[in-house]
Amino acid sequence: MPEQQQDQQQMGAYVVGGESFERDTNYIEDRIVADPAAVRALPAPPKSKVGSLGFGLSEGAQAWPVEPGRYRLVAAAACPWANRTLIVRRLLGLEDVISLGRPGPVHDARSWTFDLDPGGIDPVLGTERLQQNYFTRFPGYPRGITVPAIVDVPSGGVVTNDYPQITLDFSTQWREFHREGAPDLLPAELTEEMWPVIERVFTEVNNGVYRCGFAGSQAAYDDAYARLWAAMDWLEERLATRRFLMGGSITEADVRLFTTLVRFDPVYHGHFKTNRNRLTEMPNLWAYARELFQTPGFGDTVDFVQIKRHYYETHTDINPTRIVPDGPDLSNWLEPHGRERLGGAPFGEGTPPGPVRESERVTAGHSPLVPA
Amino acid sequence: MPEQQQDQQQMGAYVVGGESFERDTNYIEDRIVADPAAVRALPAPPKSKVGSLGFGLSEGAQAWPVEPGRYRLVAAAACPWANRTLIVRRLLGLEDVISLGRPGPVHDARSWTFDLDPGGIDPVLGTERLQQNYFTRFPGYPRGITVPAIVDVPSGGVVTNDYPQITLDFSTQWREFHREGAPDLLPAELTEEMWPVIERVFTEVNNGVYRCGFAGSQAAYDDAYARLWAAMDWLEERLATRRFLMGGSITEADVRLFTTLVRFDPVYHGHFKTNRNRLTEMPNLWAYARELFQTPGFGDTVDFVQIKRHYYETHTDINPTRIVPDGPDLSNWLEPHGRERLGGAPFGEGTPPGPVRESERVTAGHSPLVPA
Repeated sequence: MPEQQQDQQQMGAYVVGGESFERDTNYIEDRIVADPAAVRALPAPPKSKVGSLGFGLSEGAQAWPVEPGRYRLVAAAACPWANRTLIVRRLLGLEDVISLGRPGPVHDARSWTFDLDPGGIDPVLGTERLQQNYFTRFPGYPRGITVPAIVDVPSGGVVTNDYPQITLDFSTQWREFHREGAPDLLPAELTEEMWPVIERVFTEVNNGVYRCGFAGSQAAYDDAYARLWAAMDWLEERLATRRFLMGGSITEADVRLFTTLVRFDPVYHGHFKTNRNRLTEMPNLWAYARELFQTPGFGDTVDFVQIKRHYYETHTDINPTRIVPDGPDLSNWLEPHGRERLGGAPFGEGTPPGPVRESERVTAGHSPLVPA
Repeated sequence: MPEQQQDQQQMGAYVVGGESFERDTNYIEDRIVADPAAVRALPAPPKSKVGSLGFGLSEGAQAWPVEPGRYRLVAAAACPWANRTLIVRRLLGLEDVISLGRPGPVHDARSWTFDLDPGGIDPVLGTERLQQNYFTRFPGYPRGITVPAIVDVPSGGVVTNDYPQITLDFSTQWREFHREGAPDLLPAELTEEMWPVIERVFTEVNNGVYRCGFAGSQAAYDDAYARLWAAMDWLEERLATRRFLMGGSITEADVRLFTTLVRFDPVYHGHFKTNRNRLTEMPNLWAYARELFQTPGFGDTVDFVQIKRHYYETHTDINPTRIVPDGPDLSNWLEPHGRERLGGAPFGEGTPPGPVRESERVTAGHSPLVPA
């Protein structure tokens, strides 16, 4: 999870007095690709916070070969950046070729841990702490131990934690292993229009909520709040006539917006003070978010209990009591959304993914989709 | 403001780890009454957290005579307990007989202060800190320096800070000075039914929100949240068929509920984690609160800026950054409420109070009633 800047992590502090929140954007930028030699030959990508398409490797990064069964995605359900990878893996049907390791919601000062697994050990990696897999790759790795991370199972070392690129590579590099009917989340004809949307969603919304919550001064907060709500109003208007962000079908842009929206009322509204309105008060955004939640591959990756515990228990500098709110009432996520009236087809030419693997089901009571 | 228990105040701590929040209920229980000799002859009241009617003085308490111009009500707009006195004083038209001192929203560890007044000094009392007026009465007064407090202007000493009794005595003891058309907030025929309502509103709602916010453990919070929402559901149902809590007209019970409801979404929902629903999601409670807000004497005493600053800047143990949220959007307080369909008459046989005194107007921009 990229919010853990290493120095902040060591202090247990997310808020730096007097300052705006700045996200650490240094990651392990290796990639797992269909044709390593071809990718090595491409030009290096521009420095990007949202990933890139059609470029090669960043300086110093390596290309690893796509290989079913070789890699393990480590993704905490709590984390919005990891949640993206859970959704795209489901939508594309990569569950049988990329296995899933799942840290619990509350990491300590050093690392996400596999505390939910029997004996507190990931059954495939054999580690207790994701930090061990970072250290296997880079002894003494000095930056944040973040999820999502992809681990090379044979060596036990982390291949990449470059979260904006991981989902793009799932779409473009693992195509041979996509399920039948997998949607095209990056339609070529939409890429040019989509990139500015993805960038604005990242800077103003995905990261914008953190900028509100970790503001180190009233002025920094006020500015962050104004930026966030300008973007929310833009999205509300955009979704009045478009069923999804780019039109009639789901794309990568929707995945990226959804993981913030689903956390908005349960966490960001109160914990990060993004409280001009609740999501439920934004009619188009709320119906859009509900439709996605009710779509296979989206809501079935969402664990509200882990999400709330993660934020409220981890950020002790803004919630020193570590008490986790019992609200809000979440049953309304299952209400009819009425977005069919806008036409389109959620999966385009494709089909929805099948049921969630038994071992990956959200715990009963942790989501309105899985009653207690 | 009774939330300031003295020992907590000295530590700057409202949350006591592992414990439920317990409100200090020791006050200066003197009373200002129409006939001191008659009141002294009545039996002592039962120990009550909501005040009492028809009883005399608590042990050791004194009776002071009603006298226009003699007393000054010190009431911060921020404080819900003080807000009750501002409303009842307006409804009964006591503005010209009981003057008003107004501390700013953010008290320090020792006292509420007159920081909003020119030179930081109350123009009538001549003090900077309300603590001075407590000390004039009781040197070294050891308990919380709370508002509302009524000060005897000639001596400069606090007469009473017994907030549950103050509004009752405004209604029953100052009758000679009520304005023409003042409503009867304590109709004799309703008293028996009203007292249990007032008690439940106090323990479960007025104080219930603090019990959520200052819970010292997850278990204490969970219990407080369940209690609060059981009461909110009861009120929601009660107000489905009753225009006001006791029927067709406004009573003391409505004043006491209103000051909590008006703070619910701006403060308690996020800051105190009372977040099952926003007030705006409870149709009857929300329409009821809006009607009261739009009724002269209620909304015109509400300063949302002071309210938010008070809670978010004072309770540093639950909001260490002291950042004050910019939300929620409050313009919806002026939307039509539609409660007329339930019949009744807000002021019974009486009439609404006239305009707010110029000197007591809420600052522009601090309320949707007073646009910036």
